[in-house]
Amino acid sequence: MITRLSTLFLRTLREDPADAEVPSHKLLVRAGYIRRAAPGVYSWLPLGLRTLRKIEDVVREEINAIGGQELLFPALLPREPYETTGRWTEYGDHLFRLKDRRDNDMLLGPTHEEMFTSTVKDLYSSYKDFPVTLYQIQTKYRDEERPRAGILRGREFVMKDSYSFDMDDEGLEASYQAHRGAYQRIFDRLGVSYAICRATSGAMGGSASEEFLAISENGEDTFVRATDGDYAANVEAVVTQPGTERPVEGLPEAVEHDTPDAETIATLVDWANAAGVLIDGRPVTAADTLKCVVLKVTEPGAEAPELLGVLVPGDREVDMKRLEAALEPAEVAMAEEGDFRKNPFLIKGYVGPRGLAANGVRVLADPRVVTGTAWITGADAPNRHVVGLVAGRDFEVDGFIEAAEVREGDPAPAGQGSLTLARGIEIGHIFQLGRKYTEAFDVQILDVNGKRAIPTMGSYGIGVSRLMAVLAEQRHDDKGLNWPVEVAPYQVHVVVANKDQAALEAGERIVAELDAAGIEVLFDDRAKVSPGVKFKDAELLGMPFAVILGRSFADGTVELRVRGGETLEVAADEAVAKVAELVRS
Amino acid sequence: MITRLSTLFLRTLREDPADAEVPSHKLLVRAGYIRRAAPGVYSWLPLGLRTLRKIEDVVREEINAIGGQELLFPALLPREPYETTGRWTEYGDHLFRLKDRRDNDMLLGPTHEEMFTSTVKDLYSSYKDFPVTLYQIQTKYRDEERPRAGILRGREFVMKDSYSFDMDDEGLEASYQAHRGAYQRIFDRLGVSYAICRATSGAMGGSASEEFLAISENGEDTFVRATDGDYAANVEAVVTQPGTERPVEGLPEAVEHDTPDAETIATLVDWANAAGVLIDGRPVTAADTLKCVVLKVTEPGAEAPELLGVLVPGDREVDMKRLEAALEPAEVAMAEEGDFRKNPFLIKGYVGPRGLAANGVRVLADPRVVTGTAWITGADAPNRHVVGLVAGRDFEVDGFIEAAEVREGDPAPAGQGSLTLARGIEIGHIFQLGRKYTEAFDVQILDVNGKRAIPTMGSYGIGVSRLMAVLAEQRHDDKGLNWPVEVAPYQVHVVVANKDQAALEAGERIVAELDAAGIEVLFDDRAKVSPGVKFKDAELLGMPFAVILGRSFADGTVELRVRGGETLEVAADEAVAKVAELVRS
Repeated sequence: MITRLSTLFLRTLREDPADAEVPSHKLLVRAGYIRRAAPGVYSWLPLGLRTLRKIEDVVREEINAIGGQELLFPALLPREPYETTGRWTEYGDHLFRLKDRRDNDMLLGPTHEEMFTSTVKDLYSSYKDFPVTLYQIQTKYRDEERPRAGILRGREFVMKDSYSFDMDDEGLEASYQAHRGAYQRIFDRLGVSYAICRATSGAMGGSASEEFLAISENGEDTFVRATDGDYAANVEAVVTQPGTERPVEGLPEAVEHDTPDAETIATLVDWANAAGVLIDGRPVTAADTLKCVVLKVTEPGAEAPELLGVLVPGDREVDMKRLEAALEPAEVAMAEEGDFRKNPFLIKGYVGPRGLAANGVRVLADPRVVTGTAWITGADAPNRHVVGLVAGRDFEVDGFIEAAEVREGDPAPAGQGSLTLARGIEIGHIFQLGRKYTEAFDVQILDVNGKRAIPTMGSYGIGVSRLMAVLAEQRHDDKGLNWPVEVAPYQVHVVVANKDQAALEAGERIVAELDAAGIEVLFDDRAKVSPGVKFKDAELLGMPFAVILGRSFADGTVELRVRGGETLEVAADEAVAKVAELVRS
Repeated sequence: MITRLSTLFLRTLREDPADAEVPSHKLLVRAGYIRRAAPGVYSWLPLGLRTLRKIEDVVREEINAIGGQELLFPALLPREPYETTGRWTEYGDHLFRLKDRRDNDMLLGPTHEEMFTSTVKDLYSSYKDFPVTLYQIQTKYRDEERPRAGILRGREFVMKDSYSFDMDDEGLEASYQAHRGAYQRIFDRLGVSYAICRATSGAMGGSASEEFLAISENGEDTFVRATDGDYAANVEAVVTQPGTERPVEGLPEAVEHDTPDAETIATLVDWANAAGVLIDGRPVTAADTLKCVVLKVTEPGAEAPELLGVLVPGDREVDMKRLEAALEPAEVAMAEEGDFRKNPFLIKGYVGPRGLAANGVRVLADPRVVTGTAWITGADAPNRHVVGLVAGRDFEVDGFIEAAEVREGDPAPAGQGSLTLARGIEIGHIFQLGRKYTEAFDVQILDVNGKRAIPTMGSYGIGVSRLMAVLAEQRHDDKGLNWPVEVAPYQVHVVVANKDQAALEAGERIVAELDAAGIEVLFDDRAKVSPGVKFKDAELLGMPFAVILGRSFADGTVELRVRGGETLEVAADEAVAKVAELVRS
């Protein structure tokens, strides 16, 4: 097909939109792919819609190829099924809620587990019907607190969500691996640079879980990779290498000290070194101190929060996202002034593990705080610290928790060297959801023995509209976009940059031949636009290849520009064959 | 492609759903094309989604062919643009309204004039950019008072809406005619039986307007067709053939009579005939009486309603839909007891045109009430009527109005015989919208003379998801659906109805060959399902052609069934060629 710039509904902009911070947002708006309708809500202009549909098609082909069956659920949904799973409430402000004219509660679907599960329950009743994988490519709604970066995090967005239903765990594992492979093929075809990261399963419930993160400095997710291996994980999912246990026998006694003006870790270390304190025979660093963070934790359904003490080495901060992920679905908050007043045994700045345990507060420790490690920590009295407090001898903990920050250089698991940190954008998430939803809807299936069994689910999502932003983010330069052939709105941009009638006619011939060869062409046939503006637009719009009929056309040659790459001079009558070769390769 | 019934996510039902009244609703649910999620909100199961997408593709191809450019607006929209046009309020309960987490008013788009118009305003500024036609195929939301008949009138539905923008009326006319042609091609390709009816433009504003009505006894719209010509019109748009004017000179004087017990038209005619009254020398019929209907009309923005008298021949009822269409955008209600009490000159049952006029009430008459026609009507006093009251002599009217019911046999315009009545389902609507929205958004474009001009719009809609119900409505039989080749989920249904392994293997060969020929195949490969159930399912699902490997397979033949038509016996090795021929024809 041929689309002419003289009639295409498009206006490119030279200025960045005022609300745009990241390159994909700036360029997609400037190049006329998208247009803002409301915060986090975008219109898809003709070029943008073409690329969106092509991304959808790649996703569709690969999910069909693993046996996925496409259907389409409504976006406007009744409250009841989301009440069944508790998510009507759990979603909080993220859910768009509304009432219809009969005062019925409705919602705009943020995700459709309820619909998939209840539909399978309605249609299927025998193990012979399983396994089944269903999916949709659908518009979803989430009332994000901070919609950002254009279509990177929108409030109305397109998602592919699939669900597998299997009768047993082996089936689920197979469905999971099939999706894992399909996702790799999808992102490879799209030319996305990504990492597959172990992930926590979040509010969705379930067990095994991996995220596909597009590598991007503008990503909201931090993840780690091993220097010597293929380990990668979302920071929330990083498992700390535990400290080495050692016998407590023979370790020096713990000694309490007056420590005036040592309320912070830094001042405490200063005091210890000024006082000549040694831990394990070495001068003290922040890593020898033990921070006792007091939190309030509210379990789902609980009326009031309970106190929780979290112990982390003093050289690390508590990473609230890791802490929250570790304690989900409970809600967590730092203890406040009032909590300290209500619990006089909590001496602010001097809280220690012994005082917490003595007063019935649950204590969870960083995995480095193992039996035999010795610490400087609060002595549960004003201006008092204790030196050489040994875990497993002087205090016990109720368990371990992943709450401390992860740092560049931390050891990677399984001897894969150390961890490096990077930022990424979540483009896919696959996980073994299990029976959370099939149990909620009581999906009873007759198994091979004629007994009732509840199928297990896998859940697999791809942010389809987000992928378009990710491609723009990873593949642009300072002049504009640069689409992969597979999803470019048009594969070739033909520019007539020569005022001779002969050049325009040759351009018409070339686009007609390209079209006949099945190549999609964007044709800059605009009569009164300068070559400079045409070149700038071509770079901004970002088709993978451009054919320029410019000055050299008089000598029978045209320029063939690879976006972001080389420029070739080719004979005008060889241009079509050469372009076709590049497009197919 | 080949889809196997052994794995297809489908369950056919033998019973009609309890809430279904019309055949399309019953069959689409029973055949597993759609599934109800909430009143007027449906999920598209795999078969239904395939047909929906194919209908969309037919629409897309034909709108692209007339130069339409596809884009996609959000469904979730901010209030402001709909405030600009007043439709935030005007839509009343039909609009789904909601608030986001920051308490901003938002809505689910029922139609997108605001978005199209404001986007054109943003992108275009010169006459050189015009004409432009933009469209989308998009999910829309209307909170219908009575969602009915499955996807025939839903609250979430798919629509194709296009808008043309032209600098002048000639351009608009050309854009309108281009759409008219495209719509004919679309409905012809889909095999819909339809009529193109003159229509009122309704709340959308604008002038020339036609509706495409699919002919169906389950339609909500009544329309008329001429017996001798191509005239067709929605009942609201029927223009009454006016009565013949005649000189008033020489007509008998009007005479008042006591008419006890003659409050209704029937009793009044009885009285007149008993009293020997003649009108124009003939005995009296109801058509000689004149009904004076008293209404309350509230103009937009008016604080209180005003009285309006509407005169119609006594043999016809006032058709409230025609009346409302004639008075739009004003709101209309019948006068109530209180109104009669407040206006003592209104003598219930005896209201006449003279009393209305004398008291300053505006009077509009049916076009049959022309100068020189003589009537029996109320005398504005209890138990009193006047006989021989002549229009243009004894009373004047302020204008004419299309308010009386249209009847089978009424004269058609332009000598096209008489009118017949039929029912239809609106599947398309095209009209010349004019400058209502471009003026509301102040879309100023520099014209060829460098002056500012406001472009004029055409508006063109197709109910895409509704079309699927219409096809089911028009093309089913008592056994099931019957899709046209163009939009059937699969073109051929291959049924193995023979338990021999050889038949199953031959079936596999046939489907593979059909697939290789580019034909989409639904393959009933189910092992433990009886031939009878397979045949019933094939008829219910409604693929246009079926290949049956049954008893005669032993003799080397298969059955080739045309859905709703003949059954052929063909040699098994000729089946593929024969099917391919039928599919292409």
